[in-house]
Amino acid sequence: MYVNKNFDAGNIEVVQIKDSSVILNISADTNSEFKQWFYFQFHAEAGKKYHFEIANAANCSYEKGWENYQVVASYDGDYWFRVDTQYEAKKLIFSHELSHNSIYFAYFAPYSYQRHQQLIHNAQLSETCTHSVLGTTVDGRNIDLLVIGDTSNKAVWITARQHPGETMAEWCAEGIVESLLDTDSALSLTLLKDYCFYVVPNMNPDGSVHGNLRSNFAGANLNREWLEPSLEHSPEVYHVRRMMKQTGVAAYLDLHGDEGLPYVFMAGNEGNPSYSNSIAQLEQNFSNNLMVINPDFQSEFGYPKDEPGKADLRIASNWVGEEFKCLALTIEMPFKDNANIPNKEMGWSAERSYLLGTSLLTALYQTL
Amino acid sequence: MYVNKNFDAGNIEVVQIKDSSVILNISADTNSEFKQWFYFQFHAEAGKKYHFEIANAANCSYEKGWENYQVVASYDGDYWFRVDTQYEAKKLIFSHELSHNSIYFAYFAPYSYQRHQQLIHNAQLSETCTHSVLGTTVDGRNIDLLVIGDTSNKAVWITARQHPGETMAEWCAEGIVESLLDTDSALSLTLLKDYCFYVVPNMNPDGSVHGNLRSNFAGANLNREWLEPSLEHSPEVYHVRRMMKQTGVAAYLDLHGDEGLPYVFMAGNEGNPSYSNSIAQLEQNFSNNLMVINPDFQSEFGYPKDEPGKADLRIASNWVGEEFKCLALTIEMPFKDNANIPNKEMGWSAERSYLLGTSLLTALYQTL
Amino acid sequence: MYVNKNFDAGNIEVVQIKDSSVILNISADTNSEFKQWFYFQFHAEAGKKYHFEIANAANCSYEKGWENYQVVASYDGDYWFRVDTQYEAKKLIFSHELSHNSIYFAYFAPYSYQRHQQLIHNAQLSETCTHSVLGTTVDGRNIDLLVIGDTSNKAVWITARQHPGETMAEWCAEGIVESLLDTDSALSLTLLKDYCFYVVPNMNPDGSVHGNLRSNFAGANLNREWLEPSLEHSPEVYHVRRMMKQTGVAAYLDLHGDEGLPYVFMAGNEGNPSYSNSIAQLEQNFSNNLMVINPDFQSEFGYPKDEPGKADLRIASNWVGEEFKCLALTIEMPFKDNANIPNKEMGWSAERSYLLGTSLLTALYQTL
Amino acid sequence: MYVNKNFDAGNIEVVQIKDSSVILNISADTNSEFKQWFYFQFHAEAGKKYHFEIANAANCSYEKGWENYQVVASYDGDYWFRVDTQYEAKKLIFSHELSHNSIYFAYFAPYSYQRHQQLIHNAQLSETCTHSVLGTTVDGRNIDLLVIGDTSNKAVWITARQHPGETMAEWCAEGIVESLLDTDSALSLTLLKDYCFYVVPNMNPDGSVHGNLRSNFAGANLNREWLEPSLEHSPEVYHVRRMMKQTGVAAYLDLHGDEGLPYVFMAGNEGNPSYSNSIAQLEQNFSNNLMVINPDFQSEFGYPKDEPGKADLRIASNWVGEEFKCLALTIEMPFKDNANIPNKEMGWSAERSYLLGTSLLTALYQTL
Repeated sequence: MYVNKNFDAGNIEVVQIKDSSVILNISADTNSEFKQWFYFQFHAEAGKKYHFEIANAANCSYEKGWENYQVVASYDGDYWFRVDTQYEAKKLIFSHELSHNSIYFAYFAPYSYQRHQQLIHNAQLSETCTHSVLGTTVDGRNIDLLVIGDTSNKAVWITARQHPGETMAEWCAEGIVESLLDTDSALSLTLLKDYCFYVVPNMNPDGSVHGNLRSNFAGANLNREWLEPSLEHSPEVYHVRRMMKQTGVAAYLDLHGDEGLPYVFMAGNEGNPSYSNSIAQLEQNFSNNLMVINPDFQSEFGYPKDEPGKADLRIASNWVGEEFKCLALTIEMPFKDNANIPNKEMGWSAERSYLLGTSLLTALYQTL
Repeated sequence: MYVNKNFDAGNIEVVQIKDSSVILNISADTNSEFKQWFYFQFHAEAGKKYHFEIANAANCSYEKGWENYQVVASYDGDYWFRVDTQYEAKKLIFSHELSHNSIYFAYFAPYSYQRHQQLIHNAQLSETCTHSVLGTTVDGRNIDLLVIGDTSNKAVWITARQHPGETMAEWCAEGIVESLLDTDSALSLTLLKDYCFYVVPNMNPDGSVHGNLRSNFAGANLNREWLEPSLEHSPEVYHVRRMMKQTGVAAYLDLHGDEGLPYVFMAGNEGNPSYSNSIAQLEQNFSNNLMVINPDFQSEFGYPKDEPGKADLRIASNWVGEEFKCLALTIEMPFKDNANIPNKEMGWSAERSYLLGTSLLTALYQTL
Repeated sequence: MYVNKNFDAGNIEVVQIKDSSVILNISADTNSEFKQWFYFQFHAEAGKKYHFEIANAANCSYEKGWENYQVVASYDGDYWFRVDTQYEAKKLIFSHELSHNSIYFAYFAPYSYQRHQQLIHNAQLSETCTHSVLGTTVDGRNIDLLVIGDTSNKAVWITARQHPGETMAEWCAEGIVESLLDTDSALSLTLLKDYCFYVVPNMNPDGSVHGNLRSNFAGANLNREWLEPSLEHSPEVYHVRRMMKQTGVAAYLDLHGDEGLPYVFMAGNEGNPSYSNSIAQLEQNFSNNLMVINPDFQSEFGYPKDEPGKADLRIASNWVGEEFKCLALTIEMPFKDNANIPNKEMGWSAERSYLLGTSLLTALYQTL
Repeated sequence: MYVNKNFDAGNIEVVQIKDSSVILNISADTNSEFKQWFYFQFHAEAGKKYHFEIANAANCSYEKGWENYQVVASYDGDYWFRVDTQYEAKKLIFSHELSHNSIYFAYFAPYSYQRHQQLIHNAQLSETCTHSVLGTTVDGRNIDLLVIGDTSNKAVWITARQHPGETMAEWCAEGIVESLLDTDSALSLTLLKDYCFYVVPNMNPDGSVHGNLRSNFAGANLNREWLEPSLEHSPEVYHVRRMMKQTGVAAYLDLHGDEGLPYVFMAGNEGNPSYSNSIAQLEQNFSNNLMVINPDFQSEFGYPKDEPGKADLRIASNWVGEEFKCLALTIEMPFKDNANIPNKEMGWSAERSYLLGTSLLTALYQTL
């Protein structure tokens, strides 16, 4: 029996392997206490059943995240299915009979750094797209920006994966990028007449490679850095913010995954000091539009509303909304499933995250 | 130099070939005077320029169809581009310097009978879809129906290509079918909770194979047969109508191509005897919804409105609307281009017709 | 229940359909008594078992062909599997429980005319290949020739599918063409330094479209026409022969399928008047080489040897060998299976025919 | 301008970036003095020309490797082309006008660890293949073995990429694995009747990930470790050797790339103490067979022959040949090009390495 996490985004620690039982811990993010993302390869004997226990589940960042959560698994790294999982006695427990000797288990379908690089490199081959590097991360990676459209147009910004373990955010960003580059899409062609899109498909490549849940390499939670980012601690936010100030922002979407709620939802700027009726109306319109474009989105369940004036402006969408007085939303997708339209086999998936991307563009078009 | 039309949907007649000049006529539909569809393979010497003239263009069914029309061409049968074309002195004239020895020219990107069969056979592999044969055409082909969803639900009917030369209709139908079968699409999953889709991707397989513009093998214009179809003359309509009466119809879309107008538009039931405010409202909603889902659709240009009570009930969408008191629309795509969002290289294309399919489902979802 | 043969290469005649039993006849080739090829679509109810009987099997051209023969079937037109089949009481009998409503049955995996056109059109996109039309068939189709390489080199000719029902021949030709066009293949690059390849992937497109076994549209068995082909009766041979005389022939392979023997084998020129030791040695070398390149090929089973001087020079490979004093072989693949390396699921297949194509090139390289 | 090497197999060090000139050094292997592999992403302005200089080229492991060497480059990470390169004044110098903002440069087309994992995971889905982990590398990665066929048969062993920078070796191994798993290949089916294949597609995953040329993570040159491998220093060899002793070895191929010679060649066991006429004959047969199967292989150019009895038994193929008295070969592919059949655009490539894989199997079949 081998447990291997020594690859892109791998995260696990072996506590004990004995007979067919594997006891594991999730490692903390680099320079941070956050932990919940896991991803490892398990190798044993096909045809036998193995039992897995994540022993430190209760000490992870979102204990509620384990309730009704089902581990994702894959034999080929492409098709990811859910495995029957329980959260019991403070441990995350799952069993699986192997069809083949080697299997991957993860918190959610991974989006590798290699796929990220392909996304960037392929996108730049399109005539309407240029690749730009905004700066360098703490651990020395590029902060990649795709600029799609005519830079003399108003700027729509989209960022994904400030929290690197929320891989669904980059699957969704891939859907957005490919839709925008689709020269057969009248919607994209029309949007690009008036807007230029600035897409950061991965705000946190260091955290992604290191298998972090929420932190960058320096241990910063980037989505609490927007008021005062620093080059040392949060260069990813620093550089994006600086570029936003250059382009202005006409609308902003920040893509996330939520550990707890089994729904797709959004969070707005209701707590922002400058929150206005017109912004409230834009938010309402966007929500109404999106709901009837893609029923995966709903507005019943979500985060508690901020009280007026009490918004945390360290958060990207709040800061952008306040700074640019524009529609600025956090979009949340589940790690679990969409309880309204459940998929027993796959749960919420990379594929559905991708499709949501196109829908977000349609809703933006209708709202702007 | 060889001109070959002896294949699926081929249609051309050689008048004269001389030097680099090729004079051609379009053949009439089987047992009918309609003519406008053409499709042939031309073989000559790569690197040379050849001149083509469709001599009987003025005698074709829609002379206005040639104004600002650009012939489509392909070297591989997959990528279809537009060729510079003039309508002058009653002739359709185009020239092309061959990049390779063999090229196809056509009125629009063909949708072959073989692709039709693949569409049907692959669709049936999906759990939610069954293939049904409603009956036999005049020339002995199957009238294929795909039933997608739970037959105890309300029925939405979609038919395409009553006029076989309007191949964009089947490209669009393919988009609809693949969207409905996409198990990652929350929209399709939600639609299929309440509705069952009955899709006839090709109402006129005989005409398609024989290279007809508008007629079936017996020479019937199927879209004038809905009041009194006959087993001898219009079995395609006869069988579909009979099945519709079994299932009822909650909504109906009939997909077409228009020779003249360079726009995507719809035609409703305003001339139907039973036309009501509620139907008018549904039509208006559908139009408004579709326009903001897919900007290829517009409502400024279209057919003249029928006067109240003066609808031609021999037309599919009128007959269905009258019979079932439901939303029943004709959807028209251009042979030329969408003048609002033109594509110089490809004009209106198979790919855009396909994308319109998904948009039609979203608009249906929002309207129903 | 529907039986449909009204498509490219379709061939069947319904005698009687009753309950779950379907009695069928195979139709004769156009203007000819040959018959054995069948291909039809069957539509009925998934989950039920149906019984098929080809009533005129004993009157078909090769009764021995039915012994140990297994019908091929496909739900999607792409993956073809074998169905349990018996030849009993002069009837070919098979049963199948439908997994889906619609299925294809055929004598062998079809190679459609549309795929033929794609092969031709795609090949011409390659720099080293030009498409040439040699003339027109009896029923008005192009006689397509692919010229691969430098025409100042010595000519290697390859023809396939003189007998249109032997579709494995065109699958094999596709393998040859794609190998020759593979710019990463050192073998092809080396062969093309010294040789130019003239490939006719389908000698008999009329027969292919009409669902014939052995005849062209005029009823001619093309492989008995090489001594005295005529423009009226056998233009396919007439034009190829004429072109061969222009190019000369350094080596020739004629690709076929054999109804009876469950083996891959070759037939040579041992009965030719001009047969020499050097030709005998070339034949022996080719056979020895091919056997160790691709074990699907063997030399134990095959046709009886012609007596010296008694060769039928109406046969392509004999005529070419006699005319050009070169290696000239008939290559035969089975309709059944390769009994030496059987595949219960698929029998001999399109895929194996394709792979044989590359092997034939390697054997040619080693022999020439 | 950004130079980024912070990804799988990345290796470069920036000395100076100024205007359009980039001066770089290649970093040494982990814990070793070897260096020659480089791989980095360069980001600047499309449309401009940039000049690159590898300043420490003369201090790299194989100075002769730079003569007539052309750097490989790619915009999408998939298609790799050669860039005009000179070795002058002890520096490797190349220039390139960017078509897009971001480009990769490398010593040879990389084979990523992610692709390695996909190769392993997909192979295990085949019925005839199981994945086995032999042990753990110095840096904690799996030593992956694919077992293809029936383990009661005689064992053929194939290892690749002891030297991690010789990525062509794993491209070749991929060709071998996919050929062996091709259920349509009579050659593979026949080979697998008598032999079981043990394939280690990457002997040195640590070195591969760390961008090493020749060393494992501990700095060991694995191909000098076969006499006395240790668990601490060369566990990769230790575990493979141990498994070979279990299975026995009937034949062995060790796949490599050569920095200097622009040819494909092999090295045998002529210097082994136990070298015999029968082994000499096997080697000669293998060479003769391979040459006429794939003309990329030749026997004119290669390494100087070992004197009798003077073989370095620390080398894999020598040790295996001596231990198991079997055919045991080192196969070398060029980093540059095959000078006999040059490809100006791509040089020697991943694709040609892949095709060589199939040819090696055919030559083995003919020789054994």
